[in-house]
Amino acid sequence: MPSHAETKKGSLAIVGLGPGRREYITPRALRVIANAEYVIGNALYLDPLEPLLAGKHVIRSSMGKEVERAQQAIDLARSHEVAIVSGGDAGVYGMAGIVLEVLEHSGARIDVEVIPGVTAANAAASRAGSPLSGDFAVISLSDLLTPLGVIEQRLDAVFSVGIPLVLYNPKSRGRPHNLTVAISHARRYLPAETPVAIVRNAMRDDEEVIITTLADMEKNEGAVDMHTTVIIGGKESRIWRMGEDVKGIITPRGYHHKYVY
Amino acid sequence: MPSHAETKKGSLAIVGLGPGRREYITPRALRVIANAEYVIGNALYLDPLEPLLAGKHVIRSSMGKEVERAQQAIDLARSHEVAIVSGGDAGVYGMAGIVLEVLEHSGARIDVEVIPGVTAANAAASRAGSPLSGDFAVISLSDLLTPLGVIEQRLDAVFSVGIPLVLYNPKSRGRPHNLTVAISHARRYLPAETPVAIVRNAMRDDEEVIITTLADMEKNEGAVDMHTTVIIGGKESRIWRMGEDVKGIITPRGYHHKYVY
Repeated sequence: MPSHAETKKGSLAIVGLGPGRREYITPRALRVIANAEYVIGNALYLDPLEPLLAGKHVIRSSMGKEVERAQQAIDLARSHEVAIVSGGDAGVYGMAGIVLEVLEHSGARIDVEVIPGVTAANAAASRAGSPLSGDFAVISLSDLLTPLGVIEQRLDAVFSVGIPLVLYNPKSRGRPHNLTVAISHARRYLPAETPVAIVRNAMRDDEEVIITTLADMEKNEGAVDMHTTVIIGGKESRIWRMGEDVKGIITPRGYHHKYVY
Repeated sequence: MPSHAETKKGSLAIVGLGPGRREYITPRALRVIANAEYVIGNALYLDPLEPLLAGKHVIRSSMGKEVERAQQAIDLARSHEVAIVSGGDAGVYGMAGIVLEVLEHSGARIDVEVIPGVTAANAAASRAGSPLSGDFAVISLSDLLTPLGVIEQRLDAVFSVGIPLVLYNPKSRGRPHNLTVAISHARRYLPAETPVAIVRNAMRDDEEVIITTLADMEKNEGAVDMHTTVIIGGKESRIWRMGEDVKGIITPRGYHHKYVY
């Protein structure tokens, strides 16, 4: 006869924590973490949750072990309440995709909930005015899982129709030049004065926001690291000013065609 | 000598409330609303906040008066703490863009904070597995502010590179056929079995999720209304199953090229 531990039904929550610290985590995410027996994630994301984690099994993982982490989460979730956490939104370059792939392959039947969070695109945009007011695209410059040639085709497609583009993973030690490549593609389609926002460590104490242009990106590339999101405006985007001060980027939605204000 | 009311410094928060009800509103958004003297927004979004609104000036607005609402918010924010709220993320088809445009034009110097929320793309995706695991685009099918021809060019650009696409405003009384147009563009580039998620009233009591394909969209178009988000998979997206059950969509990020699992 199976023991209680073997028959107990588990569950798996794949949780997006949003940007920065506690202030941007949804109540739903906090509640699921509070109820979990196991919490799995990168130390960067787990440490701000510390007060919630007392009495739980906490598994701190490191970057680049996504498949192992997913497998471990699923094994535990067969008979325990498990939360696996990502920064931002778990469904955007987060853990949701790989966890569901491994889950499907395992054949396990487990209750799964994906809990969305504020993704880096929206967090960065909120620090830079309103650059994504209308249509936009999101592209990662990491060529670890997508060949650079494919990324370049996607960049061209987006720039050719002039909608704003959010770049995730704009730079890291392994691929320092992909941002330069992306900017050179942008220059084929968009004017030099197209605004660009560089948002580093959004919603953290050391947050840094630079509003610049495609023409001036070269001198700002040093400000871009792996904790940075870069937003390249579209053909309707412009600098937002308050008096003489540059405050951010506005991408108008077209109200100016319909209204006088 | 100016009175206290005239010299008091105001502030303006443009707040994204996320999807559904209270569980997905960030603590930052709740705190700013709790501290506001004036709260402005659509009744649909204000009603769930009711317990927070006691003792405040509440201005319930209706759809389609965005410029007037922005102007009113800015006038009040010269000397009061004002929060203007949108569903989802205020920076994505929300109030942020138009408020900043009107603010710039007014010449007023006011402290402004845009508070991001979980946008409909991420909310809908979380209910449909992990369709947006990698690069993706967001396009509104509303042709009130963008000509349909421009929307069609953007659709073609996105479909041509095979990344998933999130459709906002897929259907409304004034433009019932734009979704059919979008699907026919998708069919030019993507196979008939490309998965599609229809997510209506995400995170609300009457939430409805349909997982279908481009080929079967015609018979599902009746399920799409103005509270629906539609996600069209990319060329790598596939149906996610648990046993025989269709659970959602997975867009793999390419781990399967690098790992055996």
